Amino acid sequence: MSTAPCIVGVDIGGTKVACVLADAGGIILARQWQPTRAGEGWQAVVNQLLEMCEAVMQGVSREGIRGIGISCGGPLDSLRGIVYSPPNLPGWDAVPIVRLFEERFGLPVRLENDANATALAEHRFGAGRGTRNMVFMTWGTGIGGGLILDGRLYRGTNDLAGEIGHITILQDGPPCGCGKRGCLEALASGPSIARRARELAGDSPESALWQMTSPEEVTAQHVVDAAQAGDIFARFVLTEAATYMGIGIANLAQIVNPERVVLGTIAVKAGDLVLEPLRRALEVHAWSRVRQVLTVVPAELGGRAQDLAAVCLWLED
Amino acid sequence: MSTAPCIVGVDIGGTKVACVLADAGGIILARQWQPTRAGEGWQAVVNQLLEMCEAVMQGVSREGIRGIGISCGGPLDSLRGIVYSPPNLPGWDAVPIVRLFEERFGLPVRLENDANATALAEHRFGAGRGTRNMVFMTWGTGIGGGLILDGRLYRGTNDLAGEIGHITILQDGPPCGCGKRGCLEALASGPSIARRARELAGDSPESALWQMTSPEEVTAQHVVDAAQAGDIFARFVLTEAATYMGIGIANLAQIVNPERVVLGTIAVKAGDLVLEPLRRALEVHAWSRVRQVLTVVPAELGGRAQDLAAVCLWLED
Repeated sequence: MSTAPCIVGVDIGGTKVACVLADAGGIILARQWQPTRAGEGWQAVVNQLLEMCEAVMQGVSREGIRGIGISCGGPLDSLRGIVYSPPNLPGWDAVPIVRLFEERFGLPVRLENDANATALAEHRFGAGRGTRNMVFMTWGTGIGGGLILDGRLYRGTNDLAGEIGHITILQDGPPCGCGKRGCLEALASGPSIARRARELAGDSPESALWQMTSPEEVTAQHVVDAAQAGDIFARFVLTEAATYMGIGIANLAQIVNPERVVLGTIAVKAGDLVLEPLRRALEVHAWSRVRQVLTVVPAELGGRAQDLAAVCLWLED
Repeated sequence: MSTAPCIVGVDIGGTKVACVLADAGGIILARQWQPTRAGEGWQAVVNQLLEMCEAVMQGVSREGIRGIGISCGGPLDSLRGIVYSPPNLPGWDAVPIVRLFEERFGLPVRLENDANATALAEHRFGAGRGTRNMVFMTWGTGIGGGLILDGRLYRGTNDLAGEIGHITILQDGPPCGCGKRGCLEALASGPSIARRARELAGDSPESALWQMTSPEEVTAQHVVDAAQAGDIFARFVLTEAATYMGIGIANLAQIVNPERVVLGTIAVKAGDLVLEPLRRALEVHAWSRVRQVLTVVPAELGGRAQDLAAVCLWLED
């Protein structure tokens, strides 16, 4: 790997795409972003990205750039550099994104799924600094994970390591978007929190939640807001989701024995409202010797995570 | 690490202790074994082992020996070389076994828990040959695991990686020996299979099982024997345990994304009687893209596993 000082990071999301130029210390030197032209097919999005990359590299010689990192939702093949069909990118099917970028810029390109790339970023710059064994878990619309084991990203056999949102927690539990039942994601994700509030709405018409929104339109953000304002019903719904999250993390911890689990969005927004019940569940479901070495904390990078994630692909090894 | 041709392997079990001298190809050149003098305290067992090691090394110069590997039930600290209090070795408490062997023989000594060491053996010589990501699971009195990830043993933060027998499968399930409830081990281990047969005995007085043994004395081996003879009740009990095992392996696979899971004793003895229901459960509970790269097979080394396990500690890196 070259030791050139600059790295280009490309973040492909369903609603937003961004390109950054960064140095090896993670300082962002230039940044471009646009709403994703997802509805226009994959070529339109790739063209958007190529143009934005061109723009952030303006005035920097090719020799000054170590490589381009691309972070994208899976499924994808990091080794072959191919993005299959991410649910948030309709019309994508086996897009050879690494080859397209290599051909355009004559630079080496690496591709990684976004949970893995964010795990690298939290490990290097955020809440996982200094750890040897760390798990980053997205906790928002979906629940996914990235594993840093013995100090390195562990991808699994076909880029599916860390799919902890789809371990079965409740046999015969609610249906999951993935087609299974009772997955952690179906019990604890943002949409699952909203669904649960909706299901139980009839039992708690007096909740402050229903002064903020209707059962039809309730989101996890409403539930967190109402819980933070002290609403008992909203706290109950959050506690239930956090308890399932705690069971999922306990199962993960019995298998992976990490020293840190770093949790995304919902933990960052709701803090102790979810972390306390989560840790109580962990106490019941994970061994004390496993918990002894483990801390569960919210992510630290916030809005910087996406920018740094793709950049981190060129800070490894 | 020296490239000396010979390795000494020490296996410490609750009922049997053994020492072997082996070459780097896993060929056993000398072997000693004895019943464990477990009742006489740890010093007696260590003395047994030191004498047996002396015996297998007879006639071999120290320069010809790469090192001594010790495989033992946990909890233990592989880095510090200390065995804490394995349930099958009463009276052991923080025994500095590595130091004791190093002082006696002036050779480098490595310590590893038995599930991890057996994982290394199945990976090098058995059913995991040629794989990059493999999980070995004991399936007998207990359920434990050893993880080979990216070609190397992954131990976790304090030697507890792979404790898959103690993930929670059924909240409020039967109590587990570990103090938790509804652990995989409490649902699918040998003693759990026997317990389940006993619990259901009243519903199936006509089962061939009760011609072989009584509900008080039934063991998993009786259940396997009756199932192999075609007994429907015994098959039901095995299928239930294997289904839980399949759910556990599915959860493991969603997190670790291995290409092979190698299963110990009960899978070896019962074969398709457990592997078929196990694979059906895996189909329901693991993603098809995860299953695509995964095969679940019985262990291959049988009685050779223990001998090779400790030896393998000196075949790594």
